[in-house]
Amino acid sequence: MAYKVFAEDQLRGFTVSVFEKMGCSPQHAALAADVLLKSDLRGIDSHGVARLSGYVRLWEKKRINTTPSIRVVHETPTTATVDGDAGLGLVVAPFAMKVAIEKAEKYGSGWVSVKNSNHFGIAGYHTMLALEKDMIGFAMTNASPLVAPTFANERMLGTNPMCYAFPAGKYPPVIVDMATSAAANGKLEIAQRSGKPVPDGWIQDKDGNPSTDPHELKKGGSLLTLGGDRDHGSHKGFGLSATVDILSAVLSGANYGPWVPPFVAFLEPSANPVGEGIGHFLGAMRVDGFRPVDEFKSHLDNWIERFKSAVPVSEDQGVIIPGEPELLAERERKVSGIPIIDAVCGDLDELAARFGIGGL
Amino acid sequence: MAYKVFAEDQLRGFTVSVFEKMGCSPQHAALAADVLLKSDLRGIDSHGVARLSGYVRLWEKKRINTTPSIRVVHETPTTATVDGDAGLGLVVAPFAMKVAIEKAEKYGSGWVSVKNSNHFGIAGYHTMLALEKDMIGFAMTNASPLVAPTFANERMLGTNPMCYAFPAGKYPPVIVDMATSAAANGKLEIAQRSGKPVPDGWIQDKDGNPSTDPHELKKGGSLLTLGGDRDHGSHKGFGLSATVDILSAVLSGANYGPWVPPFVAFLEPSANPVGEGIGHFLGAMRVDGFRPVDEFKSHLDNWIERFKSAVPVSEDQGVIIPGEPELLAERERKVSGIPIIDAVCGDLDELAARFGIGGL
Repeated sequence: MAYKVFAEDQLRGFTVSVFEKMGCSPQHAALAADVLLKSDLRGIDSHGVARLSGYVRLWEKKRINTTPSIRVVHETPTTATVDGDAGLGLVVAPFAMKVAIEKAEKYGSGWVSVKNSNHFGIAGYHTMLALEKDMIGFAMTNASPLVAPTFANERMLGTNPMCYAFPAGKYPPVIVDMATSAAANGKLEIAQRSGKPVPDGWIQDKDGNPSTDPHELKKGGSLLTLGGDRDHGSHKGFGLSATVDILSAVLSGANYGPWVPPFVAFLEPSANPVGEGIGHFLGAMRVDGFRPVDEFKSHLDNWIERFKSAVPVSEDQGVIIPGEPELLAERERKVSGIPIIDAVCGDLDELAARFGIGGL
Repeated sequence: MAYKVFAEDQLRGFTVSVFEKMGCSPQHAALAADVLLKSDLRGIDSHGVARLSGYVRLWEKKRINTTPSIRVVHETPTTATVDGDAGLGLVVAPFAMKVAIEKAEKYGSGWVSVKNSNHFGIAGYHTMLALEKDMIGFAMTNASPLVAPTFANERMLGTNPMCYAFPAGKYPPVIVDMATSAAANGKLEIAQRSGKPVPDGWIQDKDGNPSTDPHELKKGGSLLTLGGDRDHGSHKGFGLSATVDILSAVLSGANYGPWVPPFVAFLEPSANPVGEGIGHFLGAMRVDGFRPVDEFKSHLDNWIERFKSAVPVSEDQGVIIPGEPELLAERERKVSGIPIIDAVCGDLDELAARFGIGGL
């Protein structure tokens, strides 16, 4: 696939300009751009600047508010509900994470459920805010319906990711960041572009039959939950996805299940919503609320070493610690730049023209 | 498979007697029996009285302390580490959950990591303690190593379950209670007894090759993480299992990964442990820390109704809400009794003879 390579700063400057043209404050524009750039740096191309034109289209439809009044609407010492005021999830989620971290600083832990928000980028960004304070970070979000629960032939759930981040000592942090569907939608899109079949258990067609044709999703099919089918544990993927949906939305007052608003501007949100916007759930726990930080980190280092040295099935490939591939991508792309495929470059050029800013 | 059916009270009385003969206080014996009976009632036969003789053998080897001094050894207002003093997990985990609930009553949430414990029965029992207080319950535990992470040919993890419980209004609670391996060990045991092949993706043989022969596990093979292989998301199952291991043990000071002591008495624990006993992680969050309880419950009822009415793939089988099969089993077995297979009846008869108590 043809692509161009850009330096991080070049993409960042452009992205900040677009968010500012949408009416974001300089502070919000810088934060939103930071979330997207972190995704591109970490190799999660589906959640970086590739999404910028999608955010613009939702803003044009007045489904994203670029001057939100984000606020806590309900709280106890360690829990809170945040109303995102229809803002970019890219700025709402860091606000909520800050609330969680402040509560954790005082009381050991902090937990925030968020309503009235939008797509929050990569979950990993938000959990990593906790790492800086020697806390364990938690982040989840619900998402527009693409996934059928076990035994259903209807899109009822989003890819509903869950993320957990743990600070290590001499090694990089352990960061588990995963869709609770068998495959993230970004992987389907890659298969659609390449025209290659996908593994069984990723999708079903519009009649609910298993399929390996990535285009079936556009023809009315569904993604499947982690596990793929009942024999392989799809009910577990459903249980995890349900957990994300309930903590993010039933708890906060956001939309849940099939009512979650679509991320794409050409699909309209439900005329009879059950809540406000989409929902997130964020949390932080102080490591020293359980044991001294240096003890925890030295044992996590030992955990990492032991898992890295597990006997491999094949000599070519050892155990991969969660978060390791993203870190390697980040180190590489910091130096050699970020590849952007031509289709996305075209979208960015259109944005430059639309807003009258310098192109890339 | 041949079995006998017993009334709940009959099994409960017998189980209490065995725990008392092991030296448990009447209070601890009643609690431990309650955890096992809840499992049998809910149809999770692998975690009920079938485990009783295993606990006795571990106690005979002095690996279970039946008169533990269970205590909080480190805490903040909302976090704590509990030392289980090598007690039965069946009594240590409810103690820790009580600590979490008391913290949640005062501060909105409570989180407890536990070291120096043993097998805690079904995770669902502990989360359900939170439901009674209109709280959301969380429970996880690590377990003796049987599971290979993605790309490894070594047993590095337990089946490491995670459980989330949410109180509903007019409907039963939503309870997600799942091993993070593709299949729980209990399901392998059923296949071993019946001699039937298991689905692909559940196990690999001693050389790391995929297998469908349930007996390969005894011959040096491993269980696989949820997903089965990399294409089907086994790295996600590994990430979840790692999360359970770190929250339960690296955070508390218990053993983790391949150092977790075996649940069976004929295998010796590591001579060079990295911590004490096995670890759990338990939590409770007040629903009204986020929104009024009646609002949450009415929306969770709506969530349940909407998922139950999702278009099914086949008319014979609709969506199953997490926790529903266990509840149906409990209703049925409360009335018609609990079936115990002959092999387990034999074990219980041996216990009766050993302790000089009335048999079943």
